[in-house]
Amino acid sequence: MTVHHFQPQQYVNTLGQHPPVLHISSGDTVVTSTVDARGWDHKGEAAAARGNPMTGPFYVEGAMPGDTLEVALESLVPNREWGWTRNALALNVVDPHIAAVLHPSEIVRWTVDVANGLAFLENPTPGLANLKLPLRPFLGCFGVAPGMGQSISTATSGEYGGNMDYRELIAGVTVYFPVLTEGALFHLGDGHATQGDGEIVGTGIEISLDVRFTVRLRKGKTIGWPRGESDTHVFCIGNSRPLDQALQHATTEMLAMLQEDYSLTATEASLLLGQTVEYDIANVYNPAYSIACKLPKELLATL
Amino acid sequence: MTVHHFQPQQYVNTLGQHPPVLHISSGDTVVTSTVDARGWDHKGEAAAARGNPMTGPFYVEGAMPGDTLEVALESLVPNREWGWTRNALALNVVDPHIAAVLHPSEIVRWTVDVANGLAFLENPTPGLANLKLPLRPFLGCFGVAPGMGQSISTATSGEYGGNMDYRELIAGVTVYFPVLTEGALFHLGDGHATQGDGEIVGTGIEISLDVRFTVRLRKGKTIGWPRGESDTHVFCIGNSRPLDQALQHATTEMLAMLQEDYSLTATEASLLLGQTVEYDIANVYNPAYSIACKLPKELLATL
Amino acid sequence: MTVHHFQPQQYVNTLGQHPPVLHISSGDTVVTSTVDARGWDHKGEAAAARGNPMTGPFYVEGAMPGDTLEVALESLVPNREWGWTRNALALNVVDPHIAAVLHPSEIVRWTVDVANGLAFLENPTPGLANLKLPLRPFLGCFGVAPGMGQSISTATSGEYGGNMDYRELIAGVTVYFPVLTEGALFHLGDGHATQGDGEIVGTGIEISLDVRFTVRLRKGKTIGWPRGESDTHVFCIGNSRPLDQALQHATTEMLAMLQEDYSLTATEASLLLGQTVEYDIANVYNPAYSIACKLPKELLATL
Amino acid sequence: MTVHHFQPQQYVNTLGQHPPVLHISSGDTVVTSTVDARGWDHKGEAAAARGNPMTGPFYVEGAMPGDTLEVALESLVPNREWGWTRNALALNVVDPHIAAVLHPSEIVRWTVDVANGLAFLENPTPGLANLKLPLRPFLGCFGVAPGMGQSISTATSGEYGGNMDYRELIAGVTVYFPVLTEGALFHLGDGHATQGDGEIVGTGIEISLDVRFTVRLRKGKTIGWPRGESDTHVFCIGNSRPLDQALQHATTEMLAMLQEDYSLTATEASLLLGQTVEYDIANVYNPAYSIACKLPKELLATL
Repeated sequence: MTVHHFQPQQYVNTLGQHPPVLHISSGDTVVTSTVDARGWDHKGEAAAARGNPMTGPFYVEGAMPGDTLEVALESLVPNREWGWTRNALALNVVDPHIAAVLHPSEIVRWTVDVANGLAFLENPTPGLANLKLPLRPFLGCFGVAPGMGQSISTATSGEYGGNMDYRELIAGVTVYFPVLTEGALFHLGDGHATQGDGEIVGTGIEISLDVRFTVRLRKGKTIGWPRGESDTHVFCIGNSRPLDQALQHATTEMLAMLQEDYSLTATEASLLLGQTVEYDIANVYNPAYSIACKLPKELLATL
Repeated sequence: MTVHHFQPQQYVNTLGQHPPVLHISSGDTVVTSTVDARGWDHKGEAAAARGNPMTGPFYVEGAMPGDTLEVALESLVPNREWGWTRNALALNVVDPHIAAVLHPSEIVRWTVDVANGLAFLENPTPGLANLKLPLRPFLGCFGVAPGMGQSISTATSGEYGGNMDYRELIAGVTVYFPVLTEGALFHLGDGHATQGDGEIVGTGIEISLDVRFTVRLRKGKTIGWPRGESDTHVFCIGNSRPLDQALQHATTEMLAMLQEDYSLTATEASLLLGQTVEYDIANVYNPAYSIACKLPKELLATL
Repeated sequence: MTVHHFQPQQYVNTLGQHPPVLHISSGDTVVTSTVDARGWDHKGEAAAARGNPMTGPFYVEGAMPGDTLEVALESLVPNREWGWTRNALALNVVDPHIAAVLHPSEIVRWTVDVANGLAFLENPTPGLANLKLPLRPFLGCFGVAPGMGQSISTATSGEYGGNMDYRELIAGVTVYFPVLTEGALFHLGDGHATQGDGEIVGTGIEISLDVRFTVRLRKGKTIGWPRGESDTHVFCIGNSRPLDQALQHATTEMLAMLQEDYSLTATEASLLLGQTVEYDIANVYNPAYSIACKLPKELLATL
Repeated sequence: MTVHHFQPQQYVNTLGQHPPVLHISSGDTVVTSTVDARGWDHKGEAAAARGNPMTGPFYVEGAMPGDTLEVALESLVPNREWGWTRNALALNVVDPHIAAVLHPSEIVRWTVDVANGLAFLENPTPGLANLKLPLRPFLGCFGVAPGMGQSISTATSGEYGGNMDYRELIAGVTVYFPVLTEGALFHLGDGHATQGDGEIVGTGIEISLDVRFTVRLRKGKTIGWPRGESDTHVFCIGNSRPLDQALQHATTEMLAMLQEDYSLTATEASLLLGQTVEYDIANVYNPAYSIACKLPKELLATL
C-alpha cells in the first residue's frame, strides 16, 4: 500500500516493451504527472517527442498474462493554465463533399481555469465569445503493454487499451485492463481538460496533468477488452475500425461480463441489454475507433 | 388548426406513393393510432401485414420538395397491456465467433403497465425476475415519402426518415423532415414501449400506440436529414450503413444547422462540436443504421 | 420464342411497380434500346429524365416470387459515336486528405468508335493523347422490381439487381435475378462503353445502347442475389455498403450455389473457395456497393 | 552484389526492432528459407512459435526513413511435400446467419507436388476427389519494420507491409516498401503454395519455402504504401479495415505513383484509372484487410 511519488524523466511513444520506470505492487498508489499530446509539460516546455508521449511503464509485481489489472483513477488535475485543440472537424466525420471544403485544421489555445473549473478560447471569434465549458479532465491514452512482445504507437488502441480518448475516463473511475505481458507494464498520458464524444476535431483540450492512481492485481481473472466502472455505470470498451466492429467487441465483452460477474444467461443478458444498453462513441478519429457499451449500476442493483 | 380524429382502416408497408388517407393543413393536429411491428392492434389482433405497417400517409396541403415538415409528437401512449421483444442479441452486434453460438432468437412477451409506467417480462427466468423498466414510448418508424417516386420498405430508413428506431423520439419531441414529394405524405407506426440504444435485439418492446401529433409546414426551409428538438437537446439524424457513414451524415447535417440556424462559421461550429458534441447510436440493426448528433440546448443558449 | 422489337417511348427512374411496357413469355427475345445515364438517346437528345432512366419494365408471363428470371444478354452495341465520363476520382475512393484537394469533377466526352472497337478522349491533354481503350459495352443498371411493392431509385442496387455497374455484364453473359413480384418486371438501362473496376470516377463511358436479350423463367428455382455465367466463370453478386457486407452477401450466395447446383457440402465448398475464389469490385461508388464472387468454370468442370 | 546463403536459427513473431540476423547491401541477394505459419519447417518439425514466424530481419546498409526498399522475389519454392489449410469459410466473409451455422474450422492437409506443380487434398471427400490446383507459391507476410520503434504482430499489416496474404506476390514480382527505420529491417515468412482471393478460409496452403530475393535501395525515393510490379501489372497495396479504407489507401497510392512516376496530372490519372483500374482483394481475413490497386503495364506503355 505504498504511495509512490514518481517524477518522470523521459517518456515513450509506444505502449510496449520498455524498461520499467518503477516497480509497484498491487495496492500501491502512484502520484505522477503526464505531458500533453505534443510532449509539452506543465511549464509549456517541450519535454518529450510528439505523439502522445507516455509516463511509464510501471511494472506491477506478479502480474502475468491472464490476470487483470485494476487501475483506480483517483485524481486528474490540469497542471497548467492553457490547453489546445484543433479547429476543424476531422475529415472522416463528415460527408466527403464537405471534407473537400473544410479549411485545413489549425491549433488554437484555450484558457484552462482550474480554480473555477472552466475552459474558454483565448481568442474567440464573436460566435463563441461567451463559450465557457466545464472542465472534465480525463486520460486520453493509457493501458498496458500489448501481448506477443509488441510495441504499438500511442496513436492507436487495442485490447490493451491505448489511445481510446474516451471522455468518461475521469477521476473516480476504475478501469480494468487484461494483463498481456509479465508485469503488465502500465503506461499513461495524453490528458484532456474536456472533450466531446468522438474526439471529432482530432483532439480534446490537450493538456498536461497531475495524476494519482492506485493499481490492484486480479490474479487469474481474465478479460478480453478494457472494462470499467464509474459512479453510475459499468462499461466495456471495444477498439477497432470501423465503428461497427468496435461496437461488436464492446458488446461481446459486456455479454461476457454479465455472464461472469452477474450470473446471467446469454438470453437474460440479451433481454436486459436489448432494452437498456447505452453506447458511447468514445473516439471516431484514431486509427482504431472506440465504443463503450454501458449499463446503469442502479439497474443492475435491482436484479 | 383543426384536430383530426383519424381511425386507420388499412396500413401500408412502405413509405411512398400511396393514396393519402387524409389531407391536413399546417397547424393541424391528428389523433390516431398505430399497430405494432407485426400488425397487431390494441386488441392484439392482426390488423395489418407484418413488417412495420404504417398509419397514413397524411397529405399536408401545400408541402412541396424543398420545404420542411415539422412534426410535434404530443402524445404516445401504449393502448394495450403487453408488448414483445426478441430475446437474443442481433448477430451483427457481437463478434462473429459469438454470433455462431447465440441461440436462435425467439419472441417473448412483456407486460406493459401504463398506469404505473412500467414494463416487465411475463415469464422471467430467475436472473430477471425483478427487472422492471420504466416506460418510455416512442415511434420506431415514421417519416415522409422518399423522393423520385420511390416507395421504400419500412424496414429501412433514409433522408426521409423511416425505420430509425431512435429511442429519444418520445412525446414532447419535435422532428423535422425534408419534404421530398408533393404533400409530404407523412407515415407513422412501429411503436416501442421502451428500448435500449441501438435496438440490439432487433426490437424494442413492440406495441400499438395511441398517438397525437401536430404538423407545421416550413415553406422554403430546406434540410438534408431529419432534425429534431427535445426538452434538452437539438439533434440531427443520419441513416446509412455502416455506422461510420451514418455518423458522417448526422455530423454534416449538424454542421449545416449550426451555420444556418445559429450563424456560426464552420470553424466556430467545429470548435464547439469538437468539445461538446454527443452522439446516440439509435439503431445498429436495420438495413440502414441510424446515429444522432446532439448538442445541449442549454449550451447553445449561452452563445 | 417470339422476338419482340420494342421501341421505348418513355422511361422510368426507379425499379418498381410501373405499368409494364410489354408482356413477354419465357423464351422470348427482346430487341430494344436504352438511353444513357442522363437520358440522352442515340441522337444525343434528351429523351428521359436524368438518373439512369430505364427501358421497361417487361412483364414476364407466369413469373412469381420464388422463381428465378434468367436474362441472356445477347447483344449490347453502342448506338452513337460518343460517350461521357467524369474526370475526377470519387471522393470516397481516396483518403480524405486527398479528397479535400481533388478538383471538382467535370464531364468530358469520349469518341466511341464502334467499327474499330475503340474509345478515346475527344480533347485529351498531352498525358493521355495516345490513350485508346478497347470497347467492352455492358449494362450498368438492370434488374427486376424489388419486392413488397417497393419502387427504388436506379441510383442504387439490391437483391433485385439495379445499379451494379459491373463491367463483366457484357454481351454473352447470362444473369439470373430472383423474382420478387408478379411478372418479375424487368428493367434495363445505363449502358457503358467500357469501365474500370469499381466505377471509381462515378461513371463508365456513359452511352446509349442497342440491346438484344432473351428471358427464360426458372419456375420454383429460388435464389437470394443475382447470379450469372460468362464464357469463363460463374459468379454471384452482393450489393450493399460497406464493401465488407457486399462481399458477405456475394460469398453467402456462392456457398448456396455450390451446395445447390454442384452438390458440394459446406466444407467442400469452403475448401474450394478458400484456394480458388476470385472477387471483382464491381462498383464502389453507388449508395450500395457491389462485389462479385467468382469461380472459373474450367475448375468446376474438373470436379 | 554478394549472394548470401542464410540459414535461419531463430524466428520472430513481430515485424519490428529485432537484432538483425544479417547485414546486407543494396544489390545483394539472399538465399534463405521460411517456416510455415505455425512454425513448421521443411521437415514438418516445429522450429518456431506459432503465428507467422519470420526469417530475419535483414539490415540493409544505408537505408534510412524516407528511402524505398526494392525487393525482387526471384524464387519461392515449397521445400516439403505437404501443406495445410483451414476447411471452413471465415465467419466474417459470410452473412451472420450463415456464420452461425458453419461448422468449426479444422486443419486439413494437402499434398504439394512440386515436381508436377500441383496441390491436392490428402483425404478428399467425394465432391473434391478430382480437385487438383496448380501451385502458385507466394509470401503471405513480409515487409520492413514499422516506424516509431514499433514492433507489430505478424498477424496484421500496415504501411510497412506485413501479413498482406496477397496471392500475386509470387516469384518474378518486385515489391517496394517504404523504409521506416534505420536499416529497413526486412522480414519474410508465411509461405503459401497457392490461395484464392481474400484468404477467405483464413489460410492459403500453408507451407515452408526456399526463398531467393535481391534487395535494392532507392535512396531519397519516398512512398506511402507497398508498391510492386509483376510481368503484367504495376500495383499499390492498401492495408486497413474495413475494405473501404484499404481501397482508399491503395487508390491514393496509385494516384501518387501515376503523378510521380508517369507524370500524369491528377485529372489524367483519374480519367485513366476510372476506365481501366483493376482491384484485387488480397485478404479479407486478417485484422487489417488488404486491397491492391492495379494497372496493366501494356496500357501504361501506350501513353
